Amino acid sequence: MNTLKGACIIGQSGGPTSVINASALGAIEAALDSPAVTRVYGAANGIKGVLDDKLYVMDEEDREELGHLRHTPSSALGSCRYKLKDPGADDTDYKRILEIFRKYDVRYFFYNGGNDSMDTCNKISKYMLQNGYECRVMGIPKTIDNDLSGTDHCPGYGSAAKYIAASCMEIYLDARVYDTGMVTVLEIMGRHAGWLTAAAALAGDYAPDLIYLPEADFDMDRFLADVQAIYQKNGKAIIAVSEGIHDENEKLIATYGGAGTHSRDSFGHTQLGGVAAKLAAFARDHTGAKVRGIEFSLLQRCASHIASRTDIDESYAAGRAAVENAVAGVTDKMVAFKCTRDGGYKCEIELVSLETAANTEKKVPREWINEAGNGVLQPYIDYALPLIAGETGQAKINGLPRFAKLRKVLAE
Amino acid sequence: MNTLKGACIIGQSGGPTSVINASALGAIEAALDSPAVTRVYGAANGIKGVLDDKLYVMDEEDREELGHLRHTPSSALGSCRYKLKDPGADDTDYKRILEIFRKYDVRYFFYNGGNDSMDTCNKISKYMLQNGYECRVMGIPKTIDNDLSGTDHCPGYGSAAKYIAASCMEIYLDARVYDTGMVTVLEIMGRHAGWLTAAAALAGDYAPDLIYLPEADFDMDRFLADVQAIYQKNGKAIIAVSEGIHDENEKLIATYGGAGTHSRDSFGHTQLGGVAAKLAAFARDHTGAKVRGIEFSLLQRCASHIASRTDIDESYAAGRAAVENAVAGVTDKMVAFKCTRDGGYKCEIELVSLETAANTEKKVPREWINEAGNGVLQPYIDYALPLIAGETGQAKINGLPRFAKLRKVLAE
Repeated sequence: MNTLKGACIIGQSGGPTSVINASALGAIEAALDSPAVTRVYGAANGIKGVLDDKLYVMDEEDREELGHLRHTPSSALGSCRYKLKDPGADDTDYKRILEIFRKYDVRYFFYNGGNDSMDTCNKISKYMLQNGYECRVMGIPKTIDNDLSGTDHCPGYGSAAKYIAASCMEIYLDARVYDTGMVTVLEIMGRHAGWLTAAAALAGDYAPDLIYLPEADFDMDRFLADVQAIYQKNGKAIIAVSEGIHDENEKLIATYGGAGTHSRDSFGHTQLGGVAAKLAAFARDHTGAKVRGIEFSLLQRCASHIASRTDIDESYAAGRAAVENAVAGVTDKMVAFKCTRDGGYKCEIELVSLETAANTEKKVPREWINEAGNGVLQPYIDYALPLIAGETGQAKINGLPRFAKLRKVLAE
Repeated sequence: MNTLKGACIIGQSGGPTSVINASALGAIEAALDSPAVTRVYGAANGIKGVLDDKLYVMDEEDREELGHLRHTPSSALGSCRYKLKDPGADDTDYKRILEIFRKYDVRYFFYNGGNDSMDTCNKISKYMLQNGYECRVMGIPKTIDNDLSGTDHCPGYGSAAKYIAASCMEIYLDARVYDTGMVTVLEIMGRHAGWLTAAAALAGDYAPDLIYLPEADFDMDRFLADVQAIYQKNGKAIIAVSEGIHDENEKLIATYGGAGTHSRDSFGHTQLGGVAAKLAAFARDHTGAKVRGIEFSLLQRCASHIASRTDIDESYAAGRAAVENAVAGVTDKMVAFKCTRDGGYKCEIELVSLETAANTEKKVPREWINEAGNGVLQPYIDYALPLIAGETGQAKINGLPRFAKLRKVLAE
């Protein structure tokens, strides 16, 4: 075995999830336990913490307190949406990263994020190699969007899906409590991939009547006809839509009839929102029904109180595997899941190239969506149901979650 | 003991809660178990089901399936917002109710709702008495708003408060994950009483920075100064507001700067909403920060997956007590809670007059709110913390809640 001794940095990037800290915990615990790792640093706000020389010393944390990270939502180390420039165009950031790596003798870098983060890993790794600095770089997947290629599913997705499905069930009952008409539109995250919105279908008997994903073009006339038909039959209609639904010309429905304020983040992604309110208003004008638009908003990515035990355990395992494999000599890989569902769900860890995951988006297969583009089919249910299984076991104090409180001692 | 033999009707009214079915279960089980009660009917959509002669025969339900009502949100029998006219002005509805009561030999009427429902109970009871029809009428309190007089707190409040507090904790962590500025405004239900919004303070170390209740006049300039100060200090600000906050002239903040569409329900209550988005926009214009408005919307009243065990047990007990006391000869009372908190929380059931609860609103005492009107004080925490204690124990199938499915056999 090729033993490489040195410090490690663990960073968290992109939008947080209910379980990104479970992955961090897996990585931190494995690193603290490894004789090869001399010091365990957590980067404050991802790669920005490396650039700013702001590293927390994880060796200084209480192990028992650290353990509560398993059930603490959001990114305990802080996150960022900072995009490294192409090193060919501007290598300032990379020089700085190498300087910091040298300063702390960092030989292991673990980055937990989505496809942008895998791209970051990839670029850093290549730069280090070109500059003759030995450093093993591993990506740990994370995204509620579940849009990373090369893995059966992503840590974070199961918990968000569980929250969405349970909330859809509850809203189904609530929204039909009166004998008066009502149209309810639920807005779920997902710019280009409809995985999260598809989770509404997991509500089974209590699922929304109509489910629209960005993988199928949205047509306003067909939507209004769909709603009208269901409303006339039942006196109620519940509709789940992805924030990123668009028409056949790729125009976002969120921008129909007056755009609202849409800004862009530093990756050029449009900040969406408001499509539920918009569709509810269209439906009201068309049906005369009382309407309500509901955005799951941040709640769907941070509701650790209803996290999936499967997701928590797999997220932790992914973090551990990244460190254990790196110590064993692996580099330039993303930890991925390989799953089988026939004869019971089984999930194994495998390692895929960073390129596989970087800058590609895995979408819901079109054949998992019905022909009309307003519903989700059984293959999706079979795929997703195992991912939401199991209850969190989160510790409570006075009836409320008990989150980890880290000391966050800065490296001098 | 004055034994009155006959059928009973149980009805649910007003906005549902996570635990209104627990109260129904308590009443139904007690009625099914009582030799005095010859038949147990559930009114479809509250008093409207009585008027429409639409009654479900609870004796036909499977007892084990019924038991799942304990953890099923919303009103399983259906609800209504129908307001009975004053019998002096128009007694059509009362004549019809008496006709139905006679038809089914109904001698017990249990109505589960808020202050409007207690008023309904009161009017029906008086009418029956005037017309020489012996019938015992009992109110069972229910409202997430916690605004009923005559009781320490209301069934339904604890579960909603628990959802709000836990969600505030999770959002607190999520909304400060980046090192960039962010102002987040949370909108919580409550037209005139701030009990639900006050629950944000239960989040303790993770509570919003500012909490505004309708019990204190809202001033936009002070609000913007408050937000600005916190934002400049921390780079983040989280604000919880009640949907019903208003200025010193009683003008709703939700109607500031263009009203949006506000309709009224049949009790003349304004349908609110949108104040979070409005305040977020004001805050953005004032601070330049990125902002986000989040409405807890229906989720706060139907999130049975995080219901309070205390609330569930008390709601069930309230339903049982209504039936048991009526069978024992009591009438014209609302079941209420009398609680002590010194030396540990204790809750006992007592009976109060229907008039005590009807058409009055109990507000958060002004002295439980800080002088600046932007925070909640310790006496509220001491009051509310016991109400959110204990986890639901809701049954799950495939990782999702298992709700009751009633047969709903209609009385011929």
